[in-house]
Amino acid sequence: MSQQKKQLRLGAFLMSSGHHVAAWRHPETPADGGLNFHHFRKVAQTAERGKFDMIFFADGVAVRQRGQGLDAVSRSAVVHFEPLTLLSALSVVTENIGLAATVSTTYNEPYHLARKFASLDYLSGGRAGWNLVTSATEAEAHNFNRDEHMEHGLRYERAREFVDVVTKLWDSWEDEAFVRDKASGIYFDPDKHHVPNHKGKHFSVLGPLNVARPPQGYPVIIQAGSSEDGQDLAAHTAEVIFTAQQTLAEAQAFYGGVKARVAQAGRNPDHVKIMPGVFPVIGKTEAEAKEKYDQLQELIHPYVGLGLLSGMIGGFDLSQYPIDGPLPDLPETNGGKSRQRLLTDLAKRDNLTIRELYLAIAGARGHRTILGTPQTIADQLEDWFVNGGADGFNIMPPYLPGGLDEFVDLVIPELQRRGLFRTEYEGKTLRENLGLPRPANQFTQVADAPELVSASR
Amino acid sequence: MSQQKKQLRLGAFLMSSGHHVAAWRHPETPADGGLNFHHFRKVAQTAERGKFDMIFFADGVAVRQRGQGLDAVSRSAVVHFEPLTLLSALSVVTENIGLAATVSTTYNEPYHLARKFASLDYLSGGRAGWNLVTSATEAEAHNFNRDEHMEHGLRYERAREFVDVVTKLWDSWEDEAFVRDKASGIYFDPDKHHVPNHKGKHFSVLGPLNVARPPQGYPVIIQAGSSEDGQDLAAHTAEVIFTAQQTLAEAQAFYGGVKARVAQAGRNPDHVKIMPGVFPVIGKTEAEAKEKYDQLQELIHPYVGLGLLSGMIGGFDLSQYPIDGPLPDLPETNGGKSRQRLLTDLAKRDNLTIRELYLAIAGARGHRTILGTPQTIADQLEDWFVNGGADGFNIMPPYLPGGLDEFVDLVIPELQRRGLFRTEYEGKTLRENLGLPRPANQFTQVADAPELVSASR
Repeated sequence: MSQQKKQLRLGAFLMSSGHHVAAWRHPETPADGGLNFHHFRKVAQTAERGKFDMIFFADGVAVRQRGQGLDAVSRSAVVHFEPLTLLSALSVVTENIGLAATVSTTYNEPYHLARKFASLDYLSGGRAGWNLVTSATEAEAHNFNRDEHMEHGLRYERAREFVDVVTKLWDSWEDEAFVRDKASGIYFDPDKHHVPNHKGKHFSVLGPLNVARPPQGYPVIIQAGSSEDGQDLAAHTAEVIFTAQQTLAEAQAFYGGVKARVAQAGRNPDHVKIMPGVFPVIGKTEAEAKEKYDQLQELIHPYVGLGLLSGMIGGFDLSQYPIDGPLPDLPETNGGKSRQRLLTDLAKRDNLTIRELYLAIAGARGHRTILGTPQTIADQLEDWFVNGGADGFNIMPPYLPGGLDEFVDLVIPELQRRGLFRTEYEGKTLRENLGLPRPANQFTQVADAPELVSASR
Repeated sequence: MSQQKKQLRLGAFLMSSGHHVAAWRHPETPADGGLNFHHFRKVAQTAERGKFDMIFFADGVAVRQRGQGLDAVSRSAVVHFEPLTLLSALSVVTENIGLAATVSTTYNEPYHLARKFASLDYLSGGRAGWNLVTSATEAEAHNFNRDEHMEHGLRYERAREFVDVVTKLWDSWEDEAFVRDKASGIYFDPDKHHVPNHKGKHFSVLGPLNVARPPQGYPVIIQAGSSEDGQDLAAHTAEVIFTAQQTLAEAQAFYGGVKARVAQAGRNPDHVKIMPGVFPVIGKTEAEAKEKYDQLQELIHPYVGLGLLSGMIGGFDLSQYPIDGPLPDLPETNGGKSRQRLLTDLAKRDNLTIRELYLAIAGARGHRTILGTPQTIADQLEDWFVNGGADGFNIMPPYLPGGLDEFVDLVIPELQRRGLFRTEYEGKTLRENLGLPRPANQFTQVADAPELVSASR
């Protein structure tokens, strides 16, 4: 295998007990996984042993997909760690793996967000990643003094300005600002200190940030929105894009479209890594994989499946429709538009009933399910990777820790044998491992460029 | 020494390089302490070795006391870790010590705060403490879309409602709510799940929280405000009170006043621990202690002292007044009222010039400075403790790690010999070690009591 061969990137998407909606009922998972630090320490260290680029936590600022009756009471995702505190703790028990989490721009302030991720980047020596979302549920609005969710277009407008403010805050201090000279008593160079003084439509933030410039310059910026607004924002600001694609043709179309948008935005398409989600069920044989999958599917209570589907199509209540009948026409949602579209397309394409649709998505939640042996799973990942469908994959183990152990012990060695995946980390930071450049400081003065507001008085 | 003897409580107040304003210039401190995790790991573990009840981090959401010229550029406190991320990381490398930090109610939302502290309480197995402040500086307002700081009375009104919302969120789930029964598929008991649905003047928060009830019920609530509004809020909600007192008579008056207010508020005065700040400079002899103190004082640049003093009296600019003349009459401040009053009283009492005042407070910043040997320092702590001036002390090492090492190696054994301090931790949680009761859940139904809104539908 040549060292020069292009290699794929891998993220480990870690839900409390696993990505399958009934994972907590699996005999081998800790049912209290979401609030069990020892569990997360174990899986994070397993992912690092497998040389994953990063671990990743989804998040929301409300109880996730609250449903009714058994839907709610059978769901383990209702309580879990806040991800920035959890990643900070995990930074101490890992050395190389990236630490990424979702934080919404709709229900946060840029100063807090810039500060927490900068702090995590220092704690971890440059391994922080931020998955920018604009939030998709009404429930979050209700926890933050609002009667309804902010409108889709406005959320993305706010997100764009939010990124602008956050990067200005990360650039408040140049990399060499802190001289810390004990003899002269000079702690920092005032010429390398910049006050962002941002005044925009959504935010008024003076700054500077009270954390030095992060080791990575900026933590790696990740996005997942597949709507028009989402893709447009990603083209301008994202460095990693998580996406849900079912077929190679769809993945290629998405991949080509996003890379073209990135180029149009004046950025290098190689500096945006596209990583579709994959939900792998691994067996020694195809039959064993199918058996493992069926074992998990049997643990889904019908109400859970129905509640999950409702949540994924924008909160629309499906309980009045026959469960073995077709999906009805849905009203336009103010939530995750792209996800609703993906699901209605899937139901039409395969002519699925409501029950069949929820069973189809209950495990991978709209992501690509691959059942197979380590070899056939590696085949399928390689197929998308070499044929322009993906720069890598966000792996969603069905249950934890077992589903991750199997991927690390069986699939990763197969990918390594094929020269498709690293055997050692390339660098110390998440950027270095992903092959992303370290961003320049926007306030650093170059010849003839006008400086922004400076605090050197 | 009897096991029954009442013992004092100790907090370790850890500033980046130490509590003295010029600590970073001390030859033995790491000048980059504020963003150096290895430094904090070491000092946290030293405090735990000394059986401190807790470590504590001050905080603000702006660069601290930004001054002009040399004042700013010679200050190490400008950049440092965000405390919740730092405490989360430290939870992994400590086992018994409490982990407390300041978070403002003025520039945060209750849902975020309740969640982060609940998460830290799970990560640490019940060791989290929240120091509630309402913020004292205009600079914080400017980082959060406001032209000016919220008015003092309004800040405290908001703080009162904030605590109400936060405790409701912590009570969203009863302690036994999560049955996690794999066989039946029941994850939680809907009768032990409560939706706060708070609607007040400042906040509208539906809930529930997406973290289970914290191990401690609520993280320990700490406060430091000494104004009328501050003491009133503390009487109703605080479990630990940090305060700055210079003499035993002042300390006794404060102690007696607060305990009376607590009783008036219908609470047990023993369940509020009053811990004045102490800035100890330790020598083998009194002369060596004085020498160590002078060594630190000589490292203060005059501009730093002046800028620091200005910041502590509400931002009033003193540079137009003769540095060796008296403190002028000061206008009413919207910032920390009680601190301004403490300083003007101190200047009048001892007839201090501006320079003498800043030198007097530059080290301990308004707290009690004790220079002496381990024995005389223990004498002074014992004096306040046995004479109704304090339930314990918040120790502010002048420089780190040395100032803490000396306290742990020399003063704590002396306190232990006198039976005034523990030799082993009493419990696993911060509450258990402080001798504070675990709060009941306000939503738990008792006979005939009307239940609040329940989500069991």
